[in-house]
Amino acid sequence: MLVIMSDIKAVLFDTFGTLVDWRGSLIRQLTQFGTARGIAADWESLTDAWRGAYKPSMDRVRSGAVPWTHLDDLHRQSLQDLVQARGIAGLGAGDLDELTRFWHRLDPWPDSSAGLHRLKRRHIVGPMSNGTVALLTNLGKHADLPWDVVIGSDVTRHYKPDPEMYLGVCAFLALAPEQVMLAAAHNQDLKAASALGLATGFIARPKEHGPHQSRDFEAEGPWDVVANSVEDLAAKLGC
Amino acid sequence: MLVIMSDIKAVLFDTFGTLVDWRGSLIRQLTQFGTARGIAADWESLTDAWRGAYKPSMDRVRSGAVPWTHLDDLHRQSLQDLVQARGIAGLGAGDLDELTRFWHRLDPWPDSSAGLHRLKRRHIVGPMSNGTVALLTNLGKHADLPWDVVIGSDVTRHYKPDPEMYLGVCAFLALAPEQVMLAAAHNQDLKAASALGLATGFIARPKEHGPHQSRDFEAEGPWDVVANSVEDLAAKLGC
Repeated sequence: MLVIMSDIKAVLFDTFGTLVDWRGSLIRQLTQFGTARGIAADWESLTDAWRGAYKPSMDRVRSGAVPWTHLDDLHRQSLQDLVQARGIAGLGAGDLDELTRFWHRLDPWPDSSAGLHRLKRRHIVGPMSNGTVALLTNLGKHADLPWDVVIGSDVTRHYKPDPEMYLGVCAFLALAPEQVMLAAAHNQDLKAASALGLATGFIARPKEHGPHQSRDFEAEGPWDVVANSVEDLAAKLGC
Repeated sequence: MLVIMSDIKAVLFDTFGTLVDWRGSLIRQLTQFGTARGIAADWESLTDAWRGAYKPSMDRVRSGAVPWTHLDDLHRQSLQDLVQARGIAGLGAGDLDELTRFWHRLDPWPDSSAGLHRLKRRHIVGPMSNGTVALLTNLGKHADLPWDVVIGSDVTRHYKPDPEMYLGVCAFLALAPEQVMLAAAHNQDLKAASALGLATGFIARPKEHGPHQSRDFEAEGPWDVVANSVEDLAAKLGC
């Protein structure tokens, strides 16, 4: 499908990894928490394992193995399982709630806020994320991600890459898929969106997984725009 | 209930009338349309009648007399009925679609944008409106209403004053009702929200209905804040 860039009305962003540095932010927050509470743990390893549980936990919802579950609850359950498995002592229920909320306060990549501010002069900007309305709204405030609109997974009640998520967000915006661009650092996400007719923008985030990054160093499909930052994407869209 | 203003996390706005001048904006757009198309009609009277059909049309949904219907479709049906009843000729289906979209491009009151920009420095700002996600997002872009989040009636699938609308929006934000303030120019809206535990802010809009205004000249309940503009509300909330 030929995508005409001037027809793009909304540029929607994968958020974890594409706009915010979840790994660095969680390691920092968890380490601060551990220091303040005198709890010793390998917080870096825990962070990677926590994120490692993310996709499998959503896949259990997507497959119907478990009923619809809010992302905060998936995050909390994964954390609880990891804390138990690793024998990290001293964390009560309130602590698990607090740590789960760390996902609401992730720091942006250096170009994310400036790039969104540029894009929003001519486009609707928002997330296309598995985060929830509250998480993404809080993240927007924390990281100065100037969303025009926030349609979370708890609105569509589907997780990416379910078609219902991509198409549901387009429908809420009353836009055709070809009027919407997904911008993401993940080729699989772009592949799923592209198959449904959305325009695609790849933004390289080679440090998302720190020393463990093994994929998504570069565009692996015929994406409409390939950029190295959100500001670069804005420039390439003429903003 | 005692509302502690420092606990307010989100200030959400009734939109039609409170933030935007639907009447002046529609009269202007309809008059321009009529002039351009050579269609003579009393566009001012049509505007008042169109708005007059608004609440009854939602009440038919709220009562269950008709199934869930998107606000654009209610607006369009009301317009079609009025055009027929008034014998206004020359409007095709595409024209009715275009005129219905006029509700997505309403101009703000002079203080609305500046006031929201002030409030959003310390609060989540968004609509608490019977508008849809697309309408409210488009309105935000058109009128520079810098929403942090947009939860429309098509998300909750309820129209105010259904409790499900007020409480549904709070739930999506993961906030308790007492952490959310409804700001509105309509005493009945504030009364419904207050009964559910939300904080309340009245903003006088004595010109909303032009020469036909018959109510809501002043606060008629013990609202937490009474203001004469959004900027005044922001000041009274310490922003």
